[in-house]
Amino acid sequence: MTTPQRITNDRLNAFCNDTEAYLSGSPTGPLAGLAFAAKDILDVAGHVTGGGNPDWKATHPPSERTAWVVQTLVDAGATMVGKTHTDELTRGIFGENVHYGTPVNASAPDRVPGGSSSGSASAVSGGLVDFALGSDTGGSVRIPSSFCGLYGLRPTHNRIPLNGILIQAPSYDTIGWFARDIELFARIGDVLLQHSNRTEMRPQRLILAQDAFELADPATVEALQPHVAAVTALIGNVQNERISHTSLADWAQRQLVLQGREAWASVDEWIDEVNPRFAFNVAERYTMGRSFTDEDVEEAQEVRTQIRTRVGELLGDDAFICLPTAVGPAPLRGGTQQERAALQVRNSRLTTIAGNSGSPQINLPLAQVPLPDGSSAPIGLSLIGPRGSDEALISLAQELAQASS
Amino acid sequence: MTTPQRITNDRLNAFCNDTEAYLSGSPTGPLAGLAFAAKDILDVAGHVTGGGNPDWKATHPPSERTAWVVQTLVDAGATMVGKTHTDELTRGIFGENVHYGTPVNASAPDRVPGGSSSGSASAVSGGLVDFALGSDTGGSVRIPSSFCGLYGLRPTHNRIPLNGILIQAPSYDTIGWFARDIELFARIGDVLLQHSNRTEMRPQRLILAQDAFELADPATVEALQPHVAAVTALIGNVQNERISHTSLADWAQRQLVLQGREAWASVDEWIDEVNPRFAFNVAERYTMGRSFTDEDVEEAQEVRTQIRTRVGELLGDDAFICLPTAVGPAPLRGGTQQERAALQVRNSRLTTIAGNSGSPQINLPLAQVPLPDGSSAPIGLSLIGPRGSDEALISLAQELAQASS
Repeated sequence: MTTPQRITNDRLNAFCNDTEAYLSGSPTGPLAGLAFAAKDILDVAGHVTGGGNPDWKATHPPSERTAWVVQTLVDAGATMVGKTHTDELTRGIFGENVHYGTPVNASAPDRVPGGSSSGSASAVSGGLVDFALGSDTGGSVRIPSSFCGLYGLRPTHNRIPLNGILIQAPSYDTIGWFARDIELFARIGDVLLQHSNRTEMRPQRLILAQDAFELADPATVEALQPHVAAVTALIGNVQNERISHTSLADWAQRQLVLQGREAWASVDEWIDEVNPRFAFNVAERYTMGRSFTDEDVEEAQEVRTQIRTRVGELLGDDAFICLPTAVGPAPLRGGTQQERAALQVRNSRLTTIAGNSGSPQINLPLAQVPLPDGSSAPIGLSLIGPRGSDEALISLAQELAQASS
Repeated sequence: MTTPQRITNDRLNAFCNDTEAYLSGSPTGPLAGLAFAAKDILDVAGHVTGGGNPDWKATHPPSERTAWVVQTLVDAGATMVGKTHTDELTRGIFGENVHYGTPVNASAPDRVPGGSSSGSASAVSGGLVDFALGSDTGGSVRIPSSFCGLYGLRPTHNRIPLNGILIQAPSYDTIGWFARDIELFARIGDVLLQHSNRTEMRPQRLILAQDAFELADPATVEALQPHVAAVTALIGNVQNERISHTSLADWAQRQLVLQGREAWASVDEWIDEVNPRFAFNVAERYTMGRSFTDEDVEEAQEVRTQIRTRVGELLGDDAFICLPTAVGPAPLRGGTQQERAALQVRNSRLTTIAGNSGSPQINLPLAQVPLPDGSSAPIGLSLIGPRGSDEALISLAQELAQASS
């Protein structure tokens, strides 16, 4: 078995070309011979974590330790062949980094890859690596999975240790991964999830999230329909529910407050000291996060508690929620900020269910949305399970793939 | 007489090194043989105006025409030897540009030069040119004049045509200039002010702005005291007045609203299209400008009308207002953003008097503030005159220089 090499012909602009970070995998282990990429918010000892912002990179020392998740994969045999681009400090869901460019979405080359784990999704979509690590605070694994047509998991909050990562908002941050193939995807899960609490379950009920489907583009709902039917057939029982008693827009707004304030607290001293360069839309997010009042935060915390209760009651210990991962396919590259902001708001109403509840969510890369020009672009179907049911989500994805092959 | 050459050994980082803009002065004319620099918000035909922001520069075409003020000086014989650095899109009063660095204040090399006309003030302070053009919306000529120990004028609003400049906030924008020597300074005024309405006057009263002096550092007030006495002796009658019936803080806050909204309107479409990189504190200003409501703007407009009435009544047609140009000397290079923001707020309470009233204000580089380490740094005394009294301000500065020599 040969050890994978560093990527030298990155035709996708997926990789950071200003770091030599490379970690050869252990010669034995369940992942031996596999090549993976790590989002450049994950520390590698001896290298500066760039975080998608050149001023962050210039003002931080090399990491002393390697992130738990990276080291665990290397110990299991996988070779880390490079670091990948991210939206600045993980603030964004489209993957358009003004400093480093937009990685190519190999599944829809005229469209954005999604973000913030943009380079990881790009590298996997284009076959440059076998799998890749990302992080998901507000959708940063799920959205690029959907846009690039990949399997992607936002794990249960706190299941995978966050040691050695560039923190955005601790009460929302998670580490996830991408792969093209569900069997390989499951092997990564076996390694990363074995160290922590697992909830054994086999779903008996499928909850179709009516309010989530209503928010998606009609063409997206139509494209997902046969796959919803296939999941329904596997699980057996299906029920239609509105997930939010108020609105998913309200839930998303509460996350905007809590995540925004935490994100500001993570960087405010650094910003005060460095006055870093940001894309306007990134700086805008930080100023918004700073602007929320303590009262806004307290109210949002109360609502988050209600959300956790509500989602917990819906899921029980035997159900999955089914919803579109995104409201539509990846937008074309080069849109205006108003277009991006509006689309981000719409998508946040879907991603906030797992975000605020802390539940795991898997993206199933099953569908293609037909486009006006006759082509098509990927769209994902999502399943959300009870906290700790990450393996059950992956198992169902495997069953589904087997059933359709 | 030899024609001045382009600056090739810019040891001060005053000049933009990414433009070849150079305009040889007319061989005859009152300014023949003089070298000047133009802030890089002034258009020169065939060259892109950079505005202190690389994304602005990258997304704008070369200018078709040369700014009126530059062409007028060239026609009068002066040679424009280069373009100078500015705070991004003129948003700032300290001269610390994260993209291009901080020009050196030759009069206090460990301190900032002031901004936004930072490179122009630096070039004049270090003797690289005879004089330089800047712009002043919220203090961008006056503050660097004071910090670098230069004569500097914010002219009467709309006296010098703004054709061919990068607009920040049209109802506050002015073009001014810097020189080390008042006689040369006056010669520039003869050229730039001849084309528009002049108010003939000789001040009979000096109004000491009590509320402005109260805002300044005690050491600054003390350093200015002998020069206040000298001006008083020249004019004869002196009276103490509080300029604002409410507070100068309130006046500055109204300018923040009006200037902020106008500044946002000047760039919002470009920002939407380009998502440009800004220093955090610059993006912050734009998001703040955008956040003001129509009601905020209406209230501020009403107050501005009252300010104009109040300042007009104080000045009549025979008085100058005397005040510190800045609350203190230039701060040391490399401060935190919180320090900068607090100092900007304090200084804005002084600069807003001429800003909101549209009156001309001249900085007299007369004093040095002693510093704890035994050195000293420049601080300026300012005179504000009735609208159109620009020449009278310059004349008084000349008299004062003659009286003290």
